Amino acid sequence: MAQTPATLDDFRAILGALPGPDTDAAAAAADRNGQLTKPPAALGRLEDLAQWYAGWRGNGRPALENPQVVIFAGNHGVAAKGVSAFPPEVTVQMVANFEHGGAAINQLSKAFGAKMDVHAIDLDRPTGDFTETPAMDDADVLAALLTGWNAVDPQADLLVTGEMGIGNTTAAAAIAHALYGGTAQDWVGRGTGVDDAGLTLKAQVVADGVARHKGGDGLDTLARLGGREIAAMAGAILRARVEGIPVILDGFICCSAAACLQAVAPDALDHCVAGHVSAESAHPALLAKLGKEPLLSLGLRLGEGSGAALAIGVLKGAVACHSGMATFAEAGVSAG
Amino acid sequence: MAQTPATLDDFRAILGALPGPDTDAAAAAADRNGQLTKPPAALGRLEDLAQWYAGWRGNGRPALENPQVVIFAGNHGVAAKGVSAFPPEVTVQMVANFEHGGAAINQLSKAFGAKMDVHAIDLDRPTGDFTETPAMDDADVLAALLTGWNAVDPQADLLVTGEMGIGNTTAAAAIAHALYGGTAQDWVGRGTGVDDAGLTLKAQVVADGVARHKGGDGLDTLARLGGREIAAMAGAILRARVEGIPVILDGFICCSAAACLQAVAPDALDHCVAGHVSAESAHPALLAKLGKEPLLSLGLRLGEGSGAALAIGVLKGAVACHSGMATFAEAGVSAG
Repeated sequence: MAQTPATLDDFRAILGALPGPDTDAAAAAADRNGQLTKPPAALGRLEDLAQWYAGWRGNGRPALENPQVVIFAGNHGVAAKGVSAFPPEVTVQMVANFEHGGAAINQLSKAFGAKMDVHAIDLDRPTGDFTETPAMDDADVLAALLTGWNAVDPQADLLVTGEMGIGNTTAAAAIAHALYGGTAQDWVGRGTGVDDAGLTLKAQVVADGVARHKGGDGLDTLARLGGREIAAMAGAILRARVEGIPVILDGFICCSAAACLQAVAPDALDHCVAGHVSAESAHPALLAKLGKEPLLSLGLRLGEGSGAALAIGVLKGAVACHSGMATFAEAGVSAG
Repeated sequence: MAQTPATLDDFRAILGALPGPDTDAAAAAADRNGQLTKPPAALGRLEDLAQWYAGWRGNGRPALENPQVVIFAGNHGVAAKGVSAFPPEVTVQMVANFEHGGAAINQLSKAFGAKMDVHAIDLDRPTGDFTETPAMDDADVLAALLTGWNAVDPQADLLVTGEMGIGNTTAAAAIAHALYGGTAQDWVGRGTGVDDAGLTLKAQVVADGVARHKGGDGLDTLARLGGREIAAMAGAILRARVEGIPVILDGFICCSAAACLQAVAPDALDHCVAGHVSAESAHPALLAKLGKEPLLSLGLRLGEGSGAALAIGVLKGAVACHSGMATFAEAGVSAG
């Protein structure tokens, strides 16, 4: 098991010395893939997925049996600006819904055989309103990163990170605008369903926040503009890398967390695939910045890890074919 | 249970009086969907899928527990023209692979909890070469339709039809060209992997066949240009309609079978969704003719029902969310 980081610089040090995939396992998987009873490349992206998974799992013929879905919830000072269609008390209400099994992510986790944990992080202590102060100071963001780091089960063989936090598409848009430039309008969307006036307000809030908090690296951006659930997702994604656990990224907010890691280390997301492209308007652009092609495009915009959880099925199918199919020799099929 | 048709005209009569969805169940599902603990429409296409499924199952809060995958195999006289990258004996070899559990569809069926059956139809008696004679006479196509009809388990709550048959992308292209016009080139693709010369040959073979077998309705086209496994898929899809079993369509060949039904009755595929768009070059155009938006786009081009089987996961997720989530009232969540 990986040693637990104790400071933000420990996180930076991990990002500076990331483990890569097991190239022997990846080569063994590629060799096996070429022998399976199908025309070459006939399983399309499933073949790429299985070989990618094999490399990160260090096993040329891996199983996928213990997916973990972990949900983080946080409250945002910037919600007081009126950037969401829902009131902030919905965050704690939805945490209760997760705990009682009533949310979409509960059903999807069950449907795809994933265990699911929920971590509500200091909901009674919203982050600072980033138009006025940094969202989090170093101690706060470190604590949130560690919540994510410690939430990962080292025995899991796949990780999905999800989130809940009224106002968090605003925080995610601010992160993306800070990291990638453009205009605030480029990165804001309707979230849970704000109207045109809400969208204009959101863009102004994002522009104000980014103007106030210039400079620093990806972890600084995460602290100043992000939120506790976003930082926790970043911590979990990084822990997964260290443990050799592949990750399926969810929507816009999850990808904003991932982006903060990639801003520090360009290869930080090599163990991640994009589960889906959401209906949040800036998600396609964010995925493009991450260099990720989504597995699904079904118009979801719920968060909670829902799109990524749905994509567990695709990855399970890919691994099942790779590891379960017969070879031409085993099946006595003519190879064409 | 539906009465078994005895003649081709019995099949035509069924197509002339198709049952629709249960509108009360669909309305109950729409009402429930509006109360679930998520922002309106935040589950995107999953919401549409669940309500569509509810209507066809006649249950506003349905379960999806007994999916059936049924694979039909047939041999094609036209294969003698050299239109495939694989020799015809691969059909029987792959049937053995299905029966022994070694094919991709075995793994996908298991991964998504589907029971799977394989029906090899007269493999020692290929259809006629449609450049010279009709592929099937009325007795042959009736027998194949009935094989499909009888293969459906009336207790199933979802059906995937798949196929295996060396040469069958050529038959499917001929059906599409006959039904929709254009040029033969518009409808042929590389199948299991023919080269440029093979593609040119395939287009010529399709053009010859379609020129020879003009006229008739969708079932006539199915007989003259199709194949036994294609006719069996059509029979199974129609039986599913009569039994209230929703269908996930697979790739180009499955869709050519479905197209023959739709050519007779424009609403014949209302109980079907498109599981995926394959890498076979004419599949997007065929889906457009069917009016179906695919659930997945992952570059598969294997057949066997593989793309549709993968989409079982999406539909399971949709139904699980719809039927398992708490309402705002149940969860005590503010509805925004």
